[in-house]
This record gives sequence, structure tokens and C-alpha cells, in this order.
Amino acid sequence: MNAFELYNSTKVVFGEDRVSRLGELVQPFGKRILLVYGGGSIKNSGLYDQVKAQLAGIDTVVHELPGIEPNPRLSTVNKGIQICRDEDIQFILAVGGGSVIDAAKAIAAGALYDGDVWDFTIGKAVVKQALPLGTILTLAATGSEMNGNSVISNWETKQKRAFGSRLVYPKFSILDPKLTYTVPVNQTVNGIVDIMSHVFEQYFSLTTDTPLQERFGESILLTVIENGEKAIANGSDYNARANLLLAGTYALNGTLPIGVVTDWATHGIEHEVSAIYDIAHGAGLAIIFPNWMKYVYKERVDRFVQFAVRVWGVDANGKTDDEIALEGIEATRAYFTRIGAPATLGELGINDENIQRMAEEATQFGPIGSYKKLAKEDVVNILKASL
Amino acid sequence: MNAFELYNSTKVVFGEDRVSRLGELVQPFGKRILLVYGGGSIKNSGLYDQVKAQLAGIDTVVHELPGIEPNPRLSTVNKGIQICRDEDIQFILAVGGGSVIDAAKAIAAGALYDGDVWDFTIGKAVVKQALPLGTILTLAATGSEMNGNSVISNWETKQKRAFGSRLVYPKFSILDPKLTYTVPVNQTVNGIVDIMSHVFEQYFSLTTDTPLQERFGESILLTVIENGEKAIANGSDYNARANLLLAGTYALNGTLPIGVVTDWATHGIEHEVSAIYDIAHGAGLAIIFPNWMKYVYKERVDRFVQFAVRVWGVDANGKTDDEIALEGIEATRAYFTRIGAPATLGELGINDENIQRMAEEATQFGPIGSYKKLAKEDVVNILKASL
Repeated sequence: MNAFELYNSTKVVFGEDRVSRLGELVQPFGKRILLVYGGGSIKNSGLYDQVKAQLAGIDTVVHELPGIEPNPRLSTVNKGIQICRDEDIQFILAVGGGSVIDAAKAIAAGALYDGDVWDFTIGKAVVKQALPLGTILTLAATGSEMNGNSVISNWETKQKRAFGSRLVYPKFSILDPKLTYTVPVNQTVNGIVDIMSHVFEQYFSLTTDTPLQERFGESILLTVIENGEKAIANGSDYNARANLLLAGTYALNGTLPIGVVTDWATHGIEHEVSAIYDIAHGAGLAIIFPNWMKYVYKERVDRFVQFAVRVWGVDANGKTDDEIALEGIEATRAYFTRIGAPATLGELGINDENIQRMAEEATQFGPIGSYKKLAKEDVVNILKASL
Repeated sequence: MNAFELYNSTKVVFGEDRVSRLGELVQPFGKRILLVYGGGSIKNSGLYDQVKAQLAGIDTVVHELPGIEPNPRLSTVNKGIQICRDEDIQFILAVGGGSVIDAAKAIAAGALYDGDVWDFTIGKAVVKQALPLGTILTLAATGSEMNGNSVISNWETKQKRAFGSRLVYPKFSILDPKLTYTVPVNQTVNGIVDIMSHVFEQYFSLTTDTPLQERFGESILLTVIENGEKAIANGSDYNARANLLLAGTYALNGTLPIGVVTDWATHGIEHEVSAIYDIAHGAGLAIIFPNWMKYVYKERVDRFVQFAVRVWGVDANGKTDDEIALEGIEATRAYFTRIGAPATLGELGINDENIQRMAEEATQFGPIGSYKKLAKEDVVNILKASL
């Protein structure tokens, strides 16, 4: 186990009808609020009205930035930054899934930065101050509700980049499983894949002697596997939705990476695919991850053997390590297929046209990943296997 | 799963030689420090000198309160409170195990309270403000390094009571596995039992549909079981010590009780035993917990079946639920015995003399526990079985 710091400043308020506490939670942060959200779903569900009523109850002035895209765009983030400056915004409230929260974080950091917010994603600047933000989560997926990460897309340059900062951890996140009842099946599926992928990026590590972190990762995977199918079968299954929501938060709230060298190559590759094709992040991960696994598993087969046995219940009897590992990878692919996730880029209408460009972009700052360091040619191979 | 809040304001700094960061961590909190510790072990190990050098490096005035007892006493806490008032202390640094940290928390809360700090433990007052505190942990056991709990003993009245407050979470806790190398075997054993007991109190619950919390609990137990014996065999096994330390923190840092009705009856009973006999908390728990388990398991046998199978690898084939559950309980007892923990109160020289009194005290505010609500007679039965 390596040295680490463990600290998370977000307060999670979890349970049915917890939006009723919104006013009390926002109150300490000021009166001038920017409300950030996506499409019309929060209006259809009544959540928008509830939020507005809570904010009215504490006598706030609310400005709105609707229309955050599924891969949130720099241009939209810049609109939000402009509103913050023009209206002297004191607090940002994100209502939606990970994209909405990521956009809110970029706005929070950009509003107090005298330059282009994109600078944070390319290492040209670090966040030194940010407006406080809070979230109401409506989708179990990204974990953005309890961390300092944000991913935004520059649609002009077809680039998708991330930044992270202690300063953009949400002050609070309200998680009500009932708010996820109306999530369509395909988005539920993408969320499941996203959560599992977050675990994979931290679980498949060359760091040894981290039994607790590994078992925590397996705990999240097993919970998602069991409850994912229940939530797909019945979107209004409270416990399935609650367990998915909690698993999604724990998959990326800093519990798994402590003392561990993490990988994140597959996310890097997927970001290049969705930067060009604007596909759902979860769909891209479902396609690429099993191919990454097959490409890298021999670097440290024992971790894949453990994964196969503990997570998928593979019977190791009389099999070689390679056979066990491959069975675990096949079980992963089979699960993704069973819940309705795509297995090839071809299914999404993507051909080999941009593979060189995507691999070039993914490795522009050098090889990616840590379990196996991937150079451009490795990324090309993984993408080709994903066609 | 029930509704819950998840928030932990402690920053854990984990790894070898992390005491070198003490100065930087203390600096924001002021110049007038109260250093709280136990016996001479931190002087023998060189840790005391290192701490003093770090505090001198940031130009602080350090007052000291040595001699915190293994079951920290109200009278000692009151001494610390007096020093805080007389010397206008701004920050409390606890260097030691859970007892030292618990005493520091009580001092932190008591220093700013215009009354008897004991009031917090009997519900006569709640903590409204507290001095900030930090810790350097030297023993994997209580979890006090990352929570707001404190247990203190009133030696005059033979009472041991707890209080909790958001305001006494340590601002930081430094966890260096090497600092636990010199912990004697018997204290290592008591720590192992304490950690496992913390999981038991939160795992054996009537709350259903909490798969993630249950699996997290099992993860901690399996990690402690594997690494406990390694740490006992070789006190300087870095990874064994590191894994125990991390498991101890996670067992009581708020990860396990979210959305769950927890029990804590066994801790309540043990507190009464150690209040009178001043035995080590871990020793008392090792004796009482298996007897509690046998007394209550039928309330919800499936949780005990799951425990037996997942934690102890009990083969369920062809057995009744009762048989499986009892096999898991026996495996727990056998593990405690194998690592050298006591199995009966008799081994500690305790007879039936004070059983009625202890049961009376334990239930003075009504039945205790939640898995099975225990009235005075139930506590008497469990204590008798523990003789």
C-alpha cells in the first residue's frame, strides 16, 4: 500500500424526499443563486417546481442556465461563467446527472478565474478559488456528486478533457432514489456501466497489499451487478435504485484509490471517442473496457483471477490462470450485453475512420494508464478490437 | 435502506514518516498547543521528540498533559480543561491510541463549556463549540481518529459513558503504520477484537436491503482476520500493520452505519464491566461478543448465515440455518482464542458478584440494542454466559 490522503468535504443527504431540506442547505451560502440543469425532465417530474419553491422559501434571487448537454460543452460553461459575473452569483445549484454537475463545477471555478476555464483541463492553470456549489442528483452514474472532478468538451476542437480540484467538491449533494425512477432504461444501463468502469480503473492496479481497497471495489461491483438488473426490470424499485445510487457515489468518492496507483486509460480512450462522436460515455465504456481487459490482463494475471472468482463466481477448479481471467472478462462482456449495452463501435455507426486521430489525441502527453502503459499503437489495437 | 447523512470532516494523512508533515498541518490552528499523550511509550520510541521538533519548527507554545489512562478518566480530562482555560489553548494534539484521542475530544468540548463535561455523556447538554484537535495515531483499534465519538470514565462513580459531536472530529489524523510496530502483542490483539466488534455492532442489524454496507463490513472483517494474525506474528510487517490501521479507521468512520439501524448493546455491556474492573475494552468485547451472538442470532438468522458463509467460509451444504449460524459464531470465538484473547470473565478474575449492578447500569435508560432489544434480565443472562 502506498501513502495517501483521505479527505472528502461533501455532505451527502440521502433518502426519500430529501429535497425538502434544500432551503436549509443552501441558506449559509448566500442569496444569489445560479440554477444549472439539463433538458426538460426535471420540469416534467415536478422537481423543478420543488426546487424553485425551496429557493423561494429562503428568499433568494435565482438565475437559470438550462440546456446542459450530455457531454457538457465549453461554450455552455462559458455562458454560465458570464451569468455568474454579471449577476454576482454566490452559489451554484446543479440539478441533474453528472454532466450537469460537471458543468456546474467548471462554472464555479471559471467564474473566479481571470482567463479561459479550458486552461484547467490542459494544465495551463490550477484552480485557486471557486464559487461554492451544491447538487441534487437525478442519475446514478458518474460519482461527480461527491468528488472534485469535472469533464467538459470543447466542441470546436473535438476535445474532451477533465480537471480536478478540492475547491469544487459540492458542499452538499441530495440523493433521493425516487428522483431516479424516471431515468430511461438506456441511461440506467449507461450509468451501471459507468459505475462498474470507475471501479475497474481503480481495481486493476499493479499496487499490491491493498486487500481492503480491493474488497471494497468488489463490494461495489457485486452491489451494482445485483441491483442493476433489478432497476432495469423495475425502474421504481426503491431499494434497487437506492443501492445503485450509493454504489455510484462510492465508486468515485475517494474510497477506492487510497494507497493505490490507478489506471484510467480506458476513460482516456473513451473520451476521445465521445469527443468526436458525442456518444454516451457509458456506451463507449461498455464497448472498450472488455477489449482493454483482454489486451492488458497478462500484466498481472492474479488480479484478474481474483476478479473472476470473487465478482463473477468463476469456478477456478482445474483451470489455468489465463483461462480463469478470460472467463471473468467474458462474464463482464456478457453482463453488459445482458443489460442491453452495446458491444461494438459498429453498433453505434462508428468505423475505423478516426482511429489514428483518436489514438494520437489519447496519447498526446505520452503513454496512458498504469496497469499497462499504453502507447499510441496500443490504443489503436484496442480501438480496432472494439470495432 | 433508511435515509442518512454522510459527512466526515477529518483529513487522514496515511503513510510512512508522515509525522514530518505535522507542523504544516497544525499551523492554521494557532500557536498555543496542548499536547495530550499516555505513558512513556512515545518517549521511548522517539515520537515525542519528533513531535516536539515539528511544533518548535512552527514556533508554538506547547503545554503538556501526559498520563492519559487506558480507560481515560474524567478527572484527567478536567485537568486538561483547566490547562486550556489557564493557558488560552488554541489547538489540542493527541498522540496515542483511542483513549488519548477520546480524552482530547472531551477536553476540546469541555474547555468551551461552562459546566461539567460529564453533562455531554448523560444528555444534560450537547456540544455547541469545541477547540480544534488533531491526532497522531499509534494503535489500530478504536477508530476515534476519524469520528466524533469519545468515551470517558468517571472513576468515582464507576461509570463509563460516551458522547458524540460533529465538533470534535479531528481536523487531521496522521496514520503511520510504523508507529504501530512497537505495540505489544496483547494490545494488538485487543485492537483486532475492537475493530471486529465495531463491524459487528453495525453489521448485525434488522435493516434490510443494504448490500453495499454489508459487503463493506465483510471486507473490513476479512482484512482484519487475514492481517491480524500477520501483525501478531511479526509486529514489523508494514503491510499487515497498514491494513489493520486502515481497517480500524473504516470500521468506525461512518461508512458502515449509513442507512442502517445499528446495535451497540455489546459495547454498552462491556462499558459496564470495564467501568468496574478497568479491564481492556478489547478483552471485554472478546469475551462478551460471542455470547451476545448466541443469545440473539435467532432474531434474524439469515444475517448470521451470511456472516458465517462470507466471512468464515462455512460450508452451508446440507446444514440448517441454525447450524450454519452457530458455526460462524464458533469460528468467531475460535479466532479470538487463536489470537490470544480471553474467552471468559473468569480468566480476568471477574466473578458473578457485580452482574446485577452491571446489568442495572447498562439498562438504566431502558432496553439496549436493536437487533434484539435487551432488558436487564437479558444482560444478566449474557453476562452469566460470559463467566
